[in-house]
Amino acid sequence: MTIKVAIAGARGRMGTTAIEAIESSPDVEAIAALDYKYNGLHLHNGNINDEGNGIPIYTSMAQMMENHAIDVLLDVTDPDAVFKNVEEALAHGVHPVVGTSGLSRRQVDEISVLVETEHIGCIIAPNFSIGAVLMMKFAAQASRYLGDVEIIEMHHDRKLDAPSGTAVKTAEMIRQYRPAHIQGHPDEQVHIEGARGADVDGMKIHSVRLPGLLAHQQVLLGGEGELLTLRHDSFDRKSFMPGILLSIRNVVGRKDLVYGLEHLID
Amino acid sequence: MTIKVAIAGARGRMGTTAIEAIESSPDVEAIAALDYKYNGLHLHNGNINDEGNGIPIYTSMAQMMENHAIDVLLDVTDPDAVFKNVEEALAHGVHPVVGTSGLSRRQVDEISVLVETEHIGCIIAPNFSIGAVLMMKFAAQASRYLGDVEIIEMHHDRKLDAPSGTAVKTAEMIRQYRPAHIQGHPDEQVHIEGARGADVDGMKIHSVRLPGLLAHQQVLLGGEGELLTLRHDSFDRKSFMPGILLSIRNVVGRKDLVYGLEHLID
Amino acid sequence: MTIKVAIAGARGRMGTTAIEAIESSPDVEAIAALDYKYNGLHLHNGNINDEGNGIPIYTSMAQMMENHAIDVLLDVTDPDAVFKNVEEALAHGVHPVVGTSGLSRRQVDEISVLVETEHIGCIIAPNFSIGAVLMMKFAAQASRYLGDVEIIEMHHDRKLDAPSGTAVKTAEMIRQYRPAHIQGHPDEQVHIEGARGADVDGMKIHSVRLPGLLAHQQVLLGGEGELLTLRHDSFDRKSFMPGILLSIRNVVGRKDLVYGLEHLID
Amino acid sequence: MTIKVAIAGARGRMGTTAIEAIESSPDVEAIAALDYKYNGLHLHNGNINDEGNGIPIYTSMAQMMENHAIDVLLDVTDPDAVFKNVEEALAHGVHPVVGTSGLSRRQVDEISVLVETEHIGCIIAPNFSIGAVLMMKFAAQASRYLGDVEIIEMHHDRKLDAPSGTAVKTAEMIRQYRPAHIQGHPDEQVHIEGARGADVDGMKIHSVRLPGLLAHQQVLLGGEGELLTLRHDSFDRKSFMPGILLSIRNVVGRKDLVYGLEHLID
Repeated sequence: MTIKVAIAGARGRMGTTAIEAIESSPDVEAIAALDYKYNGLHLHNGNINDEGNGIPIYTSMAQMMENHAIDVLLDVTDPDAVFKNVEEALAHGVHPVVGTSGLSRRQVDEISVLVETEHIGCIIAPNFSIGAVLMMKFAAQASRYLGDVEIIEMHHDRKLDAPSGTAVKTAEMIRQYRPAHIQGHPDEQVHIEGARGADVDGMKIHSVRLPGLLAHQQVLLGGEGELLTLRHDSFDRKSFMPGILLSIRNVVGRKDLVYGLEHLID
Repeated sequence: MTIKVAIAGARGRMGTTAIEAIESSPDVEAIAALDYKYNGLHLHNGNINDEGNGIPIYTSMAQMMENHAIDVLLDVTDPDAVFKNVEEALAHGVHPVVGTSGLSRRQVDEISVLVETEHIGCIIAPNFSIGAVLMMKFAAQASRYLGDVEIIEMHHDRKLDAPSGTAVKTAEMIRQYRPAHIQGHPDEQVHIEGARGADVDGMKIHSVRLPGLLAHQQVLLGGEGELLTLRHDSFDRKSFMPGILLSIRNVVGRKDLVYGLEHLID
Repeated sequence: MTIKVAIAGARGRMGTTAIEAIESSPDVEAIAALDYKYNGLHLHNGNINDEGNGIPIYTSMAQMMENHAIDVLLDVTDPDAVFKNVEEALAHGVHPVVGTSGLSRRQVDEISVLVETEHIGCIIAPNFSIGAVLMMKFAAQASRYLGDVEIIEMHHDRKLDAPSGTAVKTAEMIRQYRPAHIQGHPDEQVHIEGARGADVDGMKIHSVRLPGLLAHQQVLLGGEGELLTLRHDSFDRKSFMPGILLSIRNVVGRKDLVYGLEHLID
Repeated sequence: MTIKVAIAGARGRMGTTAIEAIESSPDVEAIAALDYKYNGLHLHNGNINDEGNGIPIYTSMAQMMENHAIDVLLDVTDPDAVFKNVEEALAHGVHPVVGTSGLSRRQVDEISVLVETEHIGCIIAPNFSIGAVLMMKFAAQASRYLGDVEIIEMHHDRKLDAPSGTAVKTAEMIRQYRPAHIQGHPDEQVHIEGARGADVDGMKIHSVRLPGLLAHQQVLLGGEGELLTLRHDSFDRKSFMPGILLSIRNVVGRKDLVYGLEHLID
């Protein structure tokens, strides 16, 4: 028995890659797409057609549920659309797997209440990259022993924000393990503003932006006479697929809300 | 109540650094040194004196035990001396903490039997660097998700052996987690012998030897579209001190044999 | 006056990217494509059409030359086709710019004779990446001062050959500057074959192959108490475009053969 | 004929290492030490003695010059002492080699005038590490082709200043080659102050401070689809010795002032 998946955001680049990954997994099946347009048409290799070739597209979740027995809704849309999709999926007894970092704390809280009421598992993962999540987990664990931490995140220069969401998330995870203390020389003299980076709870984050770069982060943990460096390089969105598949397989057996892929891996 | 420690190998560089570390820890105390010479003299800041200044030196463990109530024997001698020291310590009810990678499997097995008979805890740590041990543990854990692994270890060119013991130990720890498989292109063509490194169970180890280098290792774990790199740089033998102190504090509460610092940290 | 360029290999991925780069440069113009088929059709955004939309395709260089005044032939085909193309171009007074590492030494020698006879400049660049060429040049220069060198090249595991052509080329460039000597411990003991990598004139090359990786190389130069590392990461074939454009602009003023982009940059 | 060297600052760690390096070079000889105390005593292996064992110590340059024919004064004292030493050396016809970054622009200008008047060569090197100087030179050269640059310098957390003098010097050398322009996204949004580092002429400098680190710097140069990284690790003050010896050998043939080791290497 395969896991039946509907995809919201199927025409986007992430959706297209996800459908490819699902189609090459024997235990998972992409059977419908939820969209805000193209109702009744079909999606094949990222292209729309009206010849019945590919996955059927629906603009109404109710109608999609009527026509198909769906186990999981994979939502790779944007924060605006995702909340309503999750609400409706839970109401229909479908397990949502959500890949967006844009949900507000209040929205996550509301989803948490719904999950408890409906007894339907749900996974929200701001970052589907298992490699990135391992880097964050390991950094947090290591900070108990090597408590002086700096983060260098490096992205292409078309990225608008600094520091990156992943860097801030990493610092927040470390904060739960690292003994609180001030880092660096107590009388530090900074001659050019910003040299020592952004401060998060005593830890420093440095954001590099250069053409050519993709998405990279390193966490440096220093101790007397030694340095531990945890680095993740993300070269391609294919790196998100193992995390998406893991979530789809995991969510169907759950009745609770999981926020963050780190709770699925150990 | 402080933990009373005797040190074997106290005059060496590691012993000298260990005594400094012990003396700056309020809960641990260095009270005697076991040596093959200088019986009756004293050791102070790495120097021998006959003025009663510093730690008393003994060439006989029996005599040392008679004069002092010792909790832990820290042994940083060489493989030749260490086995007998451990045997005697256990017989006297003293907890051994051993930092050498040179014990044979048979010797470790014999110690294991003694530990069980005497009900006295013992810790043997081939590598006292917590940072290095974290790197190895994390590499093993990550290899379940990112199963293609190569190790690059880099040392000064006065190092005789290749690959390093730590690199081989790392591969052996990974082997217990990583799904077994052949790495690389199945039709790989190696035009200059050795280019692809040493093979350990399908994983590759590359040994770099250059003047200037100290002791460095990185483990590279690749997945579709991503790379996770775990790197440890050892700059100074001070990096071993937290592992030594952790072991001293831990061993006094044990009645079993622990082989490897990785079992003390999580 | 723009430089008029014909492209051989225009339908390939490198050709398509090159045409984009040429079209976004005001001083260079793509006016024809040389192919082994599709004579008379046109090429537009990588697609073939018969509506006269895009660059006209020719299967005969003679006919192409009859219809267009061409300054430069950019050849991004394979070693089999390139030699004849270069010969014909030189005979027609057209400056070849060739991007292939597959020409034999004898073929290069023959081209050299033709270039001298015809007094038409020609550039052959096994690697069009300016960044990679800078890394090689710098490594060669630095090796006069830091003469112990190891090269780590890292590629995706679909790469068949090891070591990479760039790594071998780097070692050959270094060899011309580096004082000849044996590296490493004279009594080195290699316990697992291959650990110390491939040997080129005393230097060591290590080839890493992992899924996820793209194309990366680092050259490590060690001296007493210090290490200099030169690293190049190639993330996208767009990185070749500045080298291609530099070559096109440079070749029209030459009457000699240039082998290697390193002779165009200083 | 060996080059006769007097050392100012001979008792310090740099001076002690320099004397070792000089003594192991057959063409250079350490024959006297200039100090502010211990006149008439001798210096041997970093220790003072009154048994005439080692290098004679003088507190007066005039007296030292009377007793010895000196070619070069190697000054590894501090900025306070160095200026007067250089003045006196030039007046005595002795070539100064100065290793301090603390001389003011005005002091350097005054030395320049003296050098011209006396026709005695002088070398001032803020950084004697050939590896570091190569990194800076290469970064400057490469920035003509890869003009987007960020610098990450990493030091132990006992370092007071940020950014490091070497990082600022690197940016200043790059500035002379790099086409001036603003880097990064024009609408960059920095959510935590300092994330994007210190700005020097559009380039960014990031200063990492962690226990365990020694002295490290990397220069990252980005272009479309590629990254060039130049990294220097300084592990030990022995790394300064080749630069000191090069300067001593070079200065005796000069009649001008050289500021910066980069002018001695190519």
